[in-house]
Amino acid sequence: MNIITLTTDFGVDSPYVAAMKGVIFSINRRAVVVDITHAISPQNIREAAIILEEVTPYYPPGTIHVVVVDPGVGTERALVYARFSGQQFLAPDNGLLSRLARQQQPEEVRRLENQRFWRHPVSKTFHGRDILAPTAAHLSLGVVPAELGPPAQLSVLLDWPEVRILPDRIVGVVEEIDSFGNLITNIRAEHLAGRPTDRRAVVVCGIYETYGIYGTYGQQPEDSLVAIISSSGRLELALVGSNAARRLGIAVGTPVTVAWE
Amino acid sequence: MNIITLTTDFGVDSPYVAAMKGVIFSINRRAVVVDITHAISPQNIREAAIILEEVTPYYPPGTIHVVVVDPGVGTERALVYARFSGQQFLAPDNGLLSRLARQQQPEEVRRLENQRFWRHPVSKTFHGRDILAPTAAHLSLGVVPAELGPPAQLSVLLDWPEVRILPDRIVGVVEEIDSFGNLITNIRAEHLAGRPTDRRAVVVCGIYETYGIYGTYGQQPEDSLVAIISSSGRLELALVGSNAARRLGIAVGTPVTVAWE
Amino acid sequence: MNIITLTTDFGVDSPYVAAMKGVIFSINRRAVVVDITHAISPQNIREAAIILEEVTPYYPPGTIHVVVVDPGVGTERALVYARFSGQQFLAPDNGLLSRLARQQQPEEVRRLENQRFWRHPVSKTFHGRDILAPTAAHLSLGVVPAELGPPAQLSVLLDWPEVRILPDRIVGVVEEIDSFGNLITNIRAEHLAGRPTDRRAVVVCGIYETYGIYGTYGQQPEDSLVAIISSSGRLELALVGSNAARRLGIAVGTPVTVAWE
Repeated sequence: MNIITLTTDFGVDSPYVAAMKGVIFSINRRAVVVDITHAISPQNIREAAIILEEVTPYYPPGTIHVVVVDPGVGTERALVYARFSGQQFLAPDNGLLSRLARQQQPEEVRRLENQRFWRHPVSKTFHGRDILAPTAAHLSLGVVPAELGPPAQLSVLLDWPEVRILPDRIVGVVEEIDSFGNLITNIRAEHLAGRPTDRRAVVVCGIYETYGIYGTYGQQPEDSLVAIISSSGRLELALVGSNAARRLGIAVGTPVTVAWE
Repeated sequence: MNIITLTTDFGVDSPYVAAMKGVIFSINRRAVVVDITHAISPQNIREAAIILEEVTPYYPPGTIHVVVVDPGVGTERALVYARFSGQQFLAPDNGLLSRLARQQQPEEVRRLENQRFWRHPVSKTFHGRDILAPTAAHLSLGVVPAELGPPAQLSVLLDWPEVRILPDRIVGVVEEIDSFGNLITNIRAEHLAGRPTDRRAVVVCGIYETYGIYGTYGQQPEDSLVAIISSSGRLELALVGSNAARRLGIAVGTPVTVAWE
Repeated sequence: MNIITLTTDFGVDSPYVAAMKGVIFSINRRAVVVDITHAISPQNIREAAIILEEVTPYYPPGTIHVVVVDPGVGTERALVYARFSGQQFLAPDNGLLSRLARQQQPEEVRRLENQRFWRHPVSKTFHGRDILAPTAAHLSLGVVPAELGPPAQLSVLLDWPEVRILPDRIVGVVEEIDSFGNLITNIRAEHLAGRPTDRRAVVVCGIYETYGIYGTYGQQPEDSLVAIISSSGRLELALVGSNAARRLGIAVGTPVTVAWE
């Protein structure tokens, strides 16, 4: 039996999440339901797309990921089933899966149309509860994706800033801020391969700079700005023992440059 | 085996919740425990009562709902078992179940007196951990309600504002504010049946008004005030793409009128 | 199969927690994973140590407690397995277990060295995901502690303020503040045994004082400062119906005296 995960912007401890879980357990009383996060900023599709790409590969193949960040609920946007590397997703077709789709073709995409797997009556404002949750529960009981609806394609593919690789520097952006206030960029360890990471490398973020790219926070004094490779393999800027985003006033989207003289 | 849910005002991530779960698993290691919410405002019985009415019907019959919003812990207030439409509740008799009781008679009410199902010694300030949690675990293992204590009645029945239905208008109140800041009223879709919902209907909330009652947020421009029927079948006011409660300064209890000329 | 609990400073709803759960389920799809708390203040080892001592005894023997408050990740600090009263812990050896160790000798301590139970490649900044979580999953499948690594000792034992017992008074400190703002001290019910707890006892905390030690909040009027014995058996100061820590400006570490004339 496959695990079902939930990712929403409903806020911590929302009764909407509790309603979705109730719907799932009413169909499959033995379901295993895991919260990925309910703290996506309201209606922030990009933030959710990044977290899905980052977290879902840790789950066992076949896991069913239900994603509800759905500003267009009740309009004509489609709901889809999509499978990437064996991970199964149920989500609005609004860009949530476009980070995953940047790296790889989905193995299968279906448009959710088979109302047999839905909860009735279907509200106009909460398809997470009435369509996605019950469909996930049926999938966990062995329903095959082909029963959910006709083959489809993901239609909303958001743009994601590309890293620019130049002879003397690499330019990216802050893409995510974690709960410690660390600044996680879109520059990956692979981009840095073959270049010096000692103090000849200068990392510039907004008006701040630091020299060298380290393996861990512990090698630098408290409150110094340090560049490391994060646990997800990306270049990350941190203030040792403090909250870099808050202290330095840096937001998602700020350019980050690694330069060599 | 029945699912056990938890609803408390202990705050997100409280170690008190973790202690209750430990007690449950110590009695029934295979229990399935689901958090409904731990974000009830401290000691806010009314808020919890509304959420229980709203969320618990989504759970499978037989689910055991443990509710700990208990300002009178250690005083003479009773602890009770009550069953409504097959959903089982364990809670202080302080009004928490009075929203459910407004609609229907409970099928069974017991006063919790059988100390065999309690954790000993029983503290004077945490009956959630020492009485409700272990009793829930024993129920999930097949103990029948009649063993918990003698038949009883719910003694605290709070007043809930009624919707006033007049020839030219319907008057209710904001009853709940969700995590998006949407204002959910006590006016239900049934109250509006047979009346026009197009722009002839004016919805007034405090000093704000909007025309027409729509099916979904997506039909209106960003930042406009819109009235819709919520996913729980109630009239709801929302600022499209924003937080109405915060932006407009509207709290629970504010009158809401729907009028027709 | 043993339950696995998680205690971290990652913040509520952190994707880092979700990654750890994914790693656990990828090894043991039938694992039962329970959150103790993810709201430890960032890098606050003392706060986590107190919560572990308070909460873990409620769990069934054999439970596997994974603790990730790890400011020294990537440095030379060891990761350990330790067992106290049948409860199993996986944590950095940085003082997190020193509260438990103050009361009792661990039954077994192992240094985690067997990389067969780790996730590879091991990042330098997230040993919770790459070492502790997979090791916990393997333990839950029946791996015995002796396989994890060589016998070891806990090397970091923090100091904890002792209660001073004098003929006319007992002196302790505020050790923890709960989510209601109640001030929980290190003075235990045993320390008070045989002394009067009626109005002859004066409890002083900073510039505030109250007379008598009561069994429950409900015996005093709203907004009065009251001293009770908490649900964990410790002397606690509360403002009835309010948040004492916030209203009175009292922090962890403030001295508390119980005196008799």
